[in-house]
Amino acid sequence: MNRVYNFSAGPSMLPMPVLEKAASELVCYGNSGMSVMEMSHRSPDYEAIIKKAEADLRKIMNIPDNYKVLFLQGGASTQFSSVALNLINRAPSKKGLYAVSGQFSGKAYKEAVKMGINAKCIATTKDDNFDHVPTITRDMVDQDASYLHICFNNTIYGTKYGYIPDCGDVPLVADMSSCIISEPVDVTKFGVIYAGAQKNMAPAGLTLVIVREDLLGLSDESIPTMLDWKTMADNDSMYNTPPCYAIYMAGLVYEWIAQLGGLEVMKEMNVKKAKLLYDYLDSQDYYIAPVKADSRSMMNVTFVTGDADLDKKFASEAAAAGLKNLKGHRSVGGMRASIYNAMPYEGVEALVAFMKKFAQENPKK
Amino acid sequence: MNRVYNFSAGPSMLPMPVLEKAASELVCYGNSGMSVMEMSHRSPDYEAIIKKAEADLRKIMNIPDNYKVLFLQGGASTQFSSVALNLINRAPSKKGLYAVSGQFSGKAYKEAVKMGINAKCIATTKDDNFDHVPTITRDMVDQDASYLHICFNNTIYGTKYGYIPDCGDVPLVADMSSCIISEPVDVTKFGVIYAGAQKNMAPAGLTLVIVREDLLGLSDESIPTMLDWKTMADNDSMYNTPPCYAIYMAGLVYEWIAQLGGLEVMKEMNVKKAKLLYDYLDSQDYYIAPVKADSRSMMNVTFVTGDADLDKKFASEAAAAGLKNLKGHRSVGGMRASIYNAMPYEGVEALVAFMKKFAQENPKK
Repeated sequence: MNRVYNFSAGPSMLPMPVLEKAASELVCYGNSGMSVMEMSHRSPDYEAIIKKAEADLRKIMNIPDNYKVLFLQGGASTQFSSVALNLINRAPSKKGLYAVSGQFSGKAYKEAVKMGINAKCIATTKDDNFDHVPTITRDMVDQDASYLHICFNNTIYGTKYGYIPDCGDVPLVADMSSCIISEPVDVTKFGVIYAGAQKNMAPAGLTLVIVREDLLGLSDESIPTMLDWKTMADNDSMYNTPPCYAIYMAGLVYEWIAQLGGLEVMKEMNVKKAKLLYDYLDSQDYYIAPVKADSRSMMNVTFVTGDADLDKKFASEAAAAGLKNLKGHRSVGGMRASIYNAMPYEGVEALVAFMKKFAQENPKK
Repeated sequence: MNRVYNFSAGPSMLPMPVLEKAASELVCYGNSGMSVMEMSHRSPDYEAIIKKAEADLRKIMNIPDNYKVLFLQGGASTQFSSVALNLINRAPSKKGLYAVSGQFSGKAYKEAVKMGINAKCIATTKDDNFDHVPTITRDMVDQDASYLHICFNNTIYGTKYGYIPDCGDVPLVADMSSCIISEPVDVTKFGVIYAGAQKNMAPAGLTLVIVREDLLGLSDESIPTMLDWKTMADNDSMYNTPPCYAIYMAGLVYEWIAQLGGLEVMKEMNVKKAKLLYDYLDSQDYYIAPVKADSRSMMNVTFVTGDADLDKKFASEAAAAGLKNLKGHRSVGGMRASIYNAMPYEGVEALVAFMKKFAQENPKK
């Protein structure tokens, strides 16, 4: 069995101890006589699994009691609709604010517009090819708005907010799909945090929503029940059958992080990995890192050679060397190394070594 | 490792060969160097997995080319909204018809009403405690309606339609969550078939939708994108990241069925299991099977002793004997044996033997 270093943006690497544990108990979990996949979601065995997952997540993220944790389905894309439908009535203006810092925040904005919501884009860095995130100041945030939506880490462009925008009394809603549990974050600064699980938490098919209680129950009666956070909160994410196995996997990941020492330790490990790669990028001029320094993502590192053919060759030869999925998103090209929690330091060392070798072997004309 | 016989209504048993294969390749799939859980959904390895899953399903269910197969998230409960939002505009009447044969068909109807849809219940067996399914005749189906929605097998009550209602030109929409791929079904008689996967197909977190192409693209522009079947069809279920691992597991189940000989063989096995249990129920008077003969489900077999305390004792002692989850749904009480595809014949034999022993040891007063 030869494991590769998988730099995929998502789904992406999971920690080896987690995979090995899951494999060892896949057919038969503990004394239950069955797989976790086969358990009734209302059985005591499964109740223990989902409760421990939530408790571990609350512990590592330091989630206050006045926030609900929901384990949902549908991906962040479903939340683009849910955010608008659940929150738009919060203020009489029924106006949703959006900052567009890349493809997914743009999709969230467009989804609101499509659904007939009064959505306003207050900031975008589109004219700069999203090479940094917008600077959002308090005066830009209309205080009569129902919410402000941002994407905290932009997977495709490799950018991240280096600060938490001050929104005054307007709830800040953040898509954290590609940076969730990569470092400590002050949950109290947000009204809602949501994330697809498939980048840093679990296999695809699970969506985490962390929502402040006063933001529940504001939707119109006509909201599709499964998109209504209050219904899901009132039923502890079990209004219907939840994605049980993905929640179990997320629980193993939360436990792994807790055992390592929590998000402070995780941040140290991630800083070390990202620093190795960015320091190399800053030390040479063969590769160009397009993202401005203050917006650099710790999870998704983008770079280009400046020559599309060389980029293609790079991704192809890297894959052959066991460094997989380094090709950038089809909408932007170049290379992207996603170095989530589960990527070992050795993987980034191997990448930098390969980059040096490739640069030597492929001089630019 | 002592595996039990798990009679859970869902999530429920998966075939042992499927679980063993999944366990053996969980950490590293083939030559990919990674787990299926870690694969980019757009990678060639994963594309092969999802394409084979769809091809095998099309083969075993004999799905015609003018039907799309969608692998979605959110459970059947999400489809209660999706059915109404996608189909209500099909006819100028904008009227949806519903037959209520149990809890989930009732929820589907209520969801349409809640969303402001013009929903009409044309038949219900509520007054008979849902001990049979409604008889729906052609004259009951308003021909100006957009669709008729039924639940083909009612998990909680243990009933199933023994016939396919003749709807004329009105598309028949069936929730088949608890009977999908248990026997051959004539797909051409339906406009839409949908099913949560966690009963007979895969772990929870995957929802199958089979939809006739002419029923795509009818929704209002304001439909949440993730509920729009056309968006999902146009993107081969990859508008966003699909529930990759659950689809992989479903693919293993489809392959298992194909290797056994397809749905005719599966039906033979299921008939044999159900017959063993129903024949025993009909041969004695200790246990009562409340469902009328023409509506009996082959997947969910309900029975009671007529004494709530004895029922409780039965479920408890059965569990201790390795026959798990025989307690009926909390809304109806009694016992329920869910004997899906993956339940071996030996499991039903063990159940009948236990039932005989329990009846002898616990004479009624």
